Amino acid sequence: MHAPSISRINTNSSGRQQSIDANEVNDYALRVHTIPVGVLGATGYAGHQLCSLIQRHPSLSLAFATAHDQRGTSARIDGQTIPLVATDDAKLGDAELVFSALPHGSSHEWVTRARCAGARVVDLSSDLRPGSGLVGAAYGLTELSRTTVAGAGIVANPGCYPTSVLLALAPLFARGLVAEGATITINSASGVSGAGRSPRRELMFAEVSEDYRAYGVGNTHAHLNEMRAFTRSMGADVDLAFTPHLLPVARGILSTMTVPLKSALDDVLQPWRDAYSNEPFVEITSEPPTLREVVHRNVIRIAAIALCGMRAPTLLVLSALDNLMKGAAGQAIQNANLMLGLAECAGLPA
Amino acid sequence: MHAPSISRINTNSSGRQQSIDANEVNDYALRVHTIPVGVLGATGYAGHQLCSLIQRHPSLSLAFATAHDQRGTSARIDGQTIPLVATDDAKLGDAELVFSALPHGSSHEWVTRARCAGARVVDLSSDLRPGSGLVGAAYGLTELSRTTVAGAGIVANPGCYPTSVLLALAPLFARGLVAEGATITINSASGVSGAGRSPRRELMFAEVSEDYRAYGVGNTHAHLNEMRAFTRSMGADVDLAFTPHLLPVARGILSTMTVPLKSALDDVLQPWRDAYSNEPFVEITSEPPTLREVVHRNVIRIAAIALCGMRAPTLLVLSALDNLMKGAAGQAIQNANLMLGLAECAGLPA
Amino acid sequence: MHAPSISRINTNSSGRQQSIDANEVNDYALRVHTIPVGVLGATGYAGHQLCSLIQRHPSLSLAFATAHDQRGTSARIDGQTIPLVATDDAKLGDAELVFSALPHGSSHEWVTRARCAGARVVDLSSDLRPGSGLVGAAYGLTELSRTTVAGAGIVANPGCYPTSVLLALAPLFARGLVAEGATITINSASGVSGAGRSPRRELMFAEVSEDYRAYGVGNTHAHLNEMRAFTRSMGADVDLAFTPHLLPVARGILSTMTVPLKSALDDVLQPWRDAYSNEPFVEITSEPPTLREVVHRNVIRIAAIALCGMRAPTLLVLSALDNLMKGAAGQAIQNANLMLGLAECAGLPA
Amino acid sequence: MHAPSISRINTNSSGRQQSIDANEVNDYALRVHTIPVGVLGATGYAGHQLCSLIQRHPSLSLAFATAHDQRGTSARIDGQTIPLVATDDAKLGDAELVFSALPHGSSHEWVTRARCAGARVVDLSSDLRPGSGLVGAAYGLTELSRTTVAGAGIVANPGCYPTSVLLALAPLFARGLVAEGATITINSASGVSGAGRSPRRELMFAEVSEDYRAYGVGNTHAHLNEMRAFTRSMGADVDLAFTPHLLPVARGILSTMTVPLKSALDDVLQPWRDAYSNEPFVEITSEPPTLREVVHRNVIRIAAIALCGMRAPTLLVLSALDNLMKGAAGQAIQNANLMLGLAECAGLPA
Repeated sequence: MHAPSISRINTNSSGRQQSIDANEVNDYALRVHTIPVGVLGATGYAGHQLCSLIQRHPSLSLAFATAHDQRGTSARIDGQTIPLVATDDAKLGDAELVFSALPHGSSHEWVTRARCAGARVVDLSSDLRPGSGLVGAAYGLTELSRTTVAGAGIVANPGCYPTSVLLALAPLFARGLVAEGATITINSASGVSGAGRSPRRELMFAEVSEDYRAYGVGNTHAHLNEMRAFTRSMGADVDLAFTPHLLPVARGILSTMTVPLKSALDDVLQPWRDAYSNEPFVEITSEPPTLREVVHRNVIRIAAIALCGMRAPTLLVLSALDNLMKGAAGQAIQNANLMLGLAECAGLPA
Repeated sequence: MHAPSISRINTNSSGRQQSIDANEVNDYALRVHTIPVGVLGATGYAGHQLCSLIQRHPSLSLAFATAHDQRGTSARIDGQTIPLVATDDAKLGDAELVFSALPHGSSHEWVTRARCAGARVVDLSSDLRPGSGLVGAAYGLTELSRTTVAGAGIVANPGCYPTSVLLALAPLFARGLVAEGATITINSASGVSGAGRSPRRELMFAEVSEDYRAYGVGNTHAHLNEMRAFTRSMGADVDLAFTPHLLPVARGILSTMTVPLKSALDDVLQPWRDAYSNEPFVEITSEPPTLREVVHRNVIRIAAIALCGMRAPTLLVLSALDNLMKGAAGQAIQNANLMLGLAECAGLPA
Repeated sequence: MHAPSISRINTNSSGRQQSIDANEVNDYALRVHTIPVGVLGATGYAGHQLCSLIQRHPSLSLAFATAHDQRGTSARIDGQTIPLVATDDAKLGDAELVFSALPHGSSHEWVTRARCAGARVVDLSSDLRPGSGLVGAAYGLTELSRTTVAGAGIVANPGCYPTSVLLALAPLFARGLVAEGATITINSASGVSGAGRSPRRELMFAEVSEDYRAYGVGNTHAHLNEMRAFTRSMGADVDLAFTPHLLPVARGILSTMTVPLKSALDDVLQPWRDAYSNEPFVEITSEPPTLREVVHRNVIRIAAIALCGMRAPTLLVLSALDNLMKGAAGQAIQNANLMLGLAECAGLPA
Repeated sequence: MHAPSISRINTNSSGRQQSIDANEVNDYALRVHTIPVGVLGATGYAGHQLCSLIQRHPSLSLAFATAHDQRGTSARIDGQTIPLVATDDAKLGDAELVFSALPHGSSHEWVTRARCAGARVVDLSSDLRPGSGLVGAAYGLTELSRTTVAGAGIVANPGCYPTSVLLALAPLFARGLVAEGATITINSASGVSGAGRSPRRELMFAEVSEDYRAYGVGNTHAHLNEMRAFTRSMGADVDLAFTPHLLPVARGILSTMTVPLKSALDDVLQPWRDAYSNEPFVEITSEPPTLREVVHRNVIRIAAIALCGMRAPTLLVLSALDNLMKGAAGQAIQNANLMLGLAECAGLPA
């Protein structure tokens, strides 16, 4: 039924012994039945990362990749050439699942079209996320909503900042550990790929290099609504003070959160161990996590440390992830794996 | 009393017109009467920056520069060659004022020796700062303590983080605007030069590039005592939650502070305008300050923005400075200028 | 004889559906029969990259990893914890093949010991390379010496610069296309990891960032002997003018070579197509290759462009590779695969 | 005729002692008689650097600054606010000298207009440089053409690459030391600001960071004509093989040149010492120069090293400069100083 597809790693397993490697044949047989998926908006950073992950995925094949401005050309991803078609020309029905990495605002229209064409959808835009005003999509913070995601027609893939913040704070919310009515201060710093791939002067190397700045200040960043909505949905009665910053790195987000607690914890890591100890994509640590530890991997790395010298018990919670992987395309594949009945980890570098 | 100032730029005006430039002669004559100063620890980043500023200073001359490990060699600074002597061999009495950029712990001994030799001292180490347990030095947060500094025998030059935090928060403290018993969350990010110039693996390019991390977490950073002591001295009853971060840039500190207020302010910048409007080295802005705007300059750039959607009035305060200039050597020169009766701005790039 | 290879992606396909994935069981069974290999000097950049590749390799397992200065501790590589033993304590005989990433000068002694213990050896140091004065090792420029490598007891893994230069120039040498007695100018630029991981001031972030410089100037770099010896062995009668440079990037080498030809070529890429068109790890392009295209991959990317406006036909040859992959650990695995009768591409990201 | 120069540092010496500083009064009086100059194209990197240098210049004042796309707004440069007008609205006649930092192709028209309005002109574009086909401008490689520059109505300011190459090679050409008919290989690497400030995807941080590449390959870069024309004008019979590269740094150019000599030199630095020993803006060194040594300074730093192991005597010549200073705006001010009868070094950081 599905087009045969062989993972890139196997197809590249040429070399001298190629002809005698019986496994190749078996692999080939096993992999014949891959699932076709499509990518809308394949040339942005998240779309590009998606195509790369799909190419390396053992059970997915790329049915189409769209890029309106570059239609008719092709993209070179990990040594493979991928033709780019106009969004209008994408045969949405050819895909069992469609990823939309289209810009916020224009994505939801295509989500609807893909759905009408019979495909299930993972939407990486913010159009259908909590706080957006639009409903009908499951919120795909994977570790916290597997069942919903697995059965959903549309999954709203969380934003990169919300993923870094909410996965880190959820164990505190779920256990009711945060002081009632408290303010959680969230300082996040993101690599430049988080700002997209459209040329803008303030994102040029000679402007960003050796610089660092806050933006979206005063609680005005669009991702705050998403965080607030999810926080409320977990029953947490808190204020969020969120300040994002632009880092002179290509990828990665570090979030530094200060959380007033109802009472001190004996073991500050216990809430995360309870919540995540069997999660393949969550790493719990007592040391401050670093971007270097998480880039190019589909993981979030979380630390919690008690703050000394405070009147009220207060926790420092730190999380690090790759904004294009666990913060976007990686989590999207994780959600798609669930939706398609595949192993959740399939095709994802832990 | 001191010779009138003539800039280095003129004295360097060699070239084709050199032989007929009468100014040169005058310049030379005028510069004969500069004030000799010494630098202990000249090869670290702060010591190097100090030597550079002294060389360009219209009224100071470098009597000696010490570098224990490199004694007998010379340093090349801005095209000039500076001989390096052992600390033991420095003729402390030859200097009217001595800057100590020696490591924390070993500096105060040399401060005492220099003082005994008759020199006044600006100590860039933390040895004599508030919270250190040692007394006898004026705390040199210049804009807030000019009179004390001008008459002091020893000035403890503030740390880079405390300068970025305390100059930014002082107007709120002075006016009693911070909510009683509140927690001020301080997230600071510093360039790598802040960690010193001694070779360490974690500071190597291939480790720091494309990385970002918190350190000194849990309110354990040494600068916190200094901040707390000064905050108390201003009568502020607050907790500080301080988390420093290591940025992949060479220089610069950005501090992001969340401050609960007693009541909302009509004009959030008013406290800073009142406090600093005539200050040549303080810039007040409603936009988030950036490292790019302040590096290589002796300024602190401060912004304040009200946080939306909070139950209690809360201010976001941001400050940016160059950790080697306003955060170290620049402020040290500013203090020395006051101590020596020179124009406070002499030799300092605003 | 050896276990057939299964890609890592499958074996890692754990997750929710784990229990029903029949492949997993097979994979596990297959992986029991991996080949034990050891790494001497596991904490430098090349050694670390080797351990990472071995961990992800379908047919190799890590018998030991040594790190003299950090013996007794462990290294964290790709989420796995690897114990580090003293070099003296490594059970060399437990490994079928030993990789030595020890420093130049001290490596060859351990190569001998490993050989005596019955292991075959890939030596990443320069101790046994052409031009070193020591003989007994096959030179492991894989694409050019497969048969020798496959049967060798000891393989001297080429240096990063020589790999980037010699793989690029060999097709011209092999076809006798270079002008007799000509000078080939080679300008190479390497990322900082090429200088090793031992802390040195000149490699610190605050020194390297925003800087660029030549080093080893005047034809004094140690790799030049290796290049000359191999060039002579191919019968080329040329002078090499080699200048390496230090780039402010973590990894990657770009070599820019100017080659006087005997006569103009109709199709400047033809020599490389003839030599390498079936090579999985060589990419031929008419566009200048970039570091971004090759980092974290075991490939060399080569371009050739005719120079306009020259009296004599002259070619610009450019090559890019990852100094830690195709320039060190990747090529070492490629050689080990050949030596062990595995698919040459096994465990290597093309 | 023109006011004697007083440095900005003095005029900025405000602060506590301001009222008693008699120099201030004199400075003010002296500065009344500054020379008005204009900048066309003030918002590109070179134009911005020009405005900054003019602001700090003791004898120049900024009559106007144009920025067609940003007309009506203002630029913030070194703490000063500068109004930006449309190019059409610039009162060209108000300036005694006009700097054009307009794009190549559109600059020469405005050069003519400014000239007709009575102003002398320094044109930073390539429109009127040697090899451009247009005549009528003096070529402003300052150290090599002072008399011509001083008397010229229009000076074509050299390109950044040609400055780095020609100032370095001229002493060899002037002394006839280069082998007849030889090929000089020139590999240059430039910071990103050299590519201009207009937003382009390939100049964005997330593309340039950790990357390095050649461009303008095959002797196709526009600056090559300029180099060839000047080389011929010095009587040198050589071929140039020029390959520029894009560095992940904001500013700076390093050129690495391999030069076949007629015969070996006893002292390889002698030609440069003879030519430049009294030049304030040329530094001669036996060590490889670095970008770090020259950025933000109006200098070129030149090294020459004999290449070992070559059949024919061959010299490695290296030069480093800041592409926006000595490679553009700094040299433009140097030329303007000569044209206006000022000290050549006035307002320039050596």
